[in-house]
Amino acid sequence: MTKPGAPAVAAVDWGTSSLRVWLLDRGGAALAERRSGEGMQTARTAGFPTVLERMLSELAAPADLPAIVCGMAGARQGWIEAPYADVPCALDEIFSRAIDAPDAPRRVRIIPGLAQRVKEAPDVMRGEETQIAGAVRSLGAGRHIVCMPGTHSKWVAVDGGSVTGFTTWMTGELFDVFARHSILAHSIGDSVKGISADDDAFMTGLEQGLEGADRVSSLTFGIRAATLLQGLQPKDAAARLSGLLVGAEIAGAERRYLGSDNEVILVASGALGTLYAAALKKAGLAIKTVDADEAVRAGLVQAARMNGMLPERA
Amino acid sequence: MTKPGAPAVAAVDWGTSSLRVWLLDRGGAALAERRSGEGMQTARTAGFPTVLERMLSELAAPADLPAIVCGMAGARQGWIEAPYADVPCALDEIFSRAIDAPDAPRRVRIIPGLAQRVKEAPDVMRGEETQIAGAVRSLGAGRHIVCMPGTHSKWVAVDGGSVTGFTTWMTGELFDVFARHSILAHSIGDSVKGISADDDAFMTGLEQGLEGADRVSSLTFGIRAATLLQGLQPKDAAARLSGLLVGAEIAGAERRYLGSDNEVILVASGALGTLYAAALKKAGLAIKTVDADEAVRAGLVQAARMNGMLPERA
Repeated sequence: MTKPGAPAVAAVDWGTSSLRVWLLDRGGAALAERRSGEGMQTARTAGFPTVLERMLSELAAPADLPAIVCGMAGARQGWIEAPYADVPCALDEIFSRAIDAPDAPRRVRIIPGLAQRVKEAPDVMRGEETQIAGAVRSLGAGRHIVCMPGTHSKWVAVDGGSVTGFTTWMTGELFDVFARHSILAHSIGDSVKGISADDDAFMTGLEQGLEGADRVSSLTFGIRAATLLQGLQPKDAAARLSGLLVGAEIAGAERRYLGSDNEVILVASGALGTLYAAALKKAGLAIKTVDADEAVRAGLVQAARMNGMLPERA
Repeated sequence: MTKPGAPAVAAVDWGTSSLRVWLLDRGGAALAERRSGEGMQTARTAGFPTVLERMLSELAAPADLPAIVCGMAGARQGWIEAPYADVPCALDEIFSRAIDAPDAPRRVRIIPGLAQRVKEAPDVMRGEETQIAGAVRSLGAGRHIVCMPGTHSKWVAVDGGSVTGFTTWMTGELFDVFARHSILAHSIGDSVKGISADDDAFMTGLEQGLEGADRVSSLTFGIRAATLLQGLQPKDAAARLSGLLVGAEIAGAERRYLGSDNEVILVASGALGTLYAAALKKAGLAIKTVDADEAVRAGLVQAARMNGMLPERA
């Protein structure tokens, strides 16, 4: 039995391009945190056990401290494939299907992702299921529509503690490929950072995307034309593109998920959270915001408890 | 006065990535043709006059043969900027606004593109205006909706010999950036060629795009998920992506342009023309097809006549 205040478990969120590790005490409180860019892409080469051990050593973690892991470490190209759980799926059920990681000098359990094996709308997630579990815990049972913005934004329907369905939107990745690899690169240049909901150009794009979700590839070319005909500046071109893609995501997802109930649980952090909060409000939706960092940690605590790595709640 | 059967003018279609030159007799009939990959991107470095003179010399064109040029040679980054004509604009009017190209050892006239200076829907074209003029000539006056598929597909409303409005769709370019620069690259690999309307996967994607034009960035991720969950093969992933983007273009453009009148003039050549013909039919539209190569040549003949490079029609 560990003492209160001493680390009882390491909680790990292993993304495609980033890695976060917390040391948690037996009550689930964070004692220390460390972030790095050693996501799956880097760890595939460096070796997952090597990367994790280095992070834990930098945090002065005891050699026998167990670790609970969510995210891309469980992908086919990850540490070891943790086979997807299929929706509809109770959030507790996901955590009970965590598997042991091989070749680790300590106990490491990896949480599986979720698969939607619907012929017409196949979809997958890894990592977000843990955030959802943490977020929903603070919201109680009932039906919730959860929006999790990012490289691959997820809109998730949760009902009575189960994920009943979800949809991925490639919004963040699309922004990147349009800005870097399409003709819009000539309009945007290097101005891809610091987009804010206070930008008029973001709001202009957002309105276009909300109203014209069915003609995104035409509205994006309009950004190039606005550079040529109207002197649109690079910073504004980037903000308009961002607004356009976020607006199209919200309009499409709203049509799919929201009926008379128009409340969205926004699970996000930092600047992206602020941007989506403003965008969802502009779309006429009511939002409750849950911090994404807190949500994933709360989910990992819950998973650690279900895997016997932390004592059940006092 | 040139003899019948002797070259009277060179007709040039200068695209972003390709260049086509025909020698035409005084009746407008093609005597010889040459194509190369020296589009605007190459010619910017090599020099436009140098590239054109080499092509004409390979065709054994007389030193004083005049040339009429459409396309990207008139862009800001081209040979010389030929300022856009603004819509609504009569097709004849565009040709009368051709300008002289500098530094050429012969007379070279460059046809301007078209600009749509509408605040909410700015748009531009260069080259397609000449194809439209050629295509519409064979169709007569009246109102026509023209679909010109490609890297940047154009949907154009023509009424009484004038272009009244148009919209660009980045369909071809989007296929390329999704297939090469997004997570779909892992699903598609090198299987980006040889997509046919006979592929079931193309038709599956087409139906998804026609029905779900407002959630393209979600349906594209579905292709990645289908690889992971349903064993979708690279060739089928590419065909589905193509169908999806073409379907979304047709659905969005149809909503914008077509009312009770559901006839589309398809200006296209080769495999892309076959693909779009099948897709437009699947969408329930009636089509008349005009060969794009013939259309651009017919337009260039008309432009040469209006610029005194060919005698008026006998």
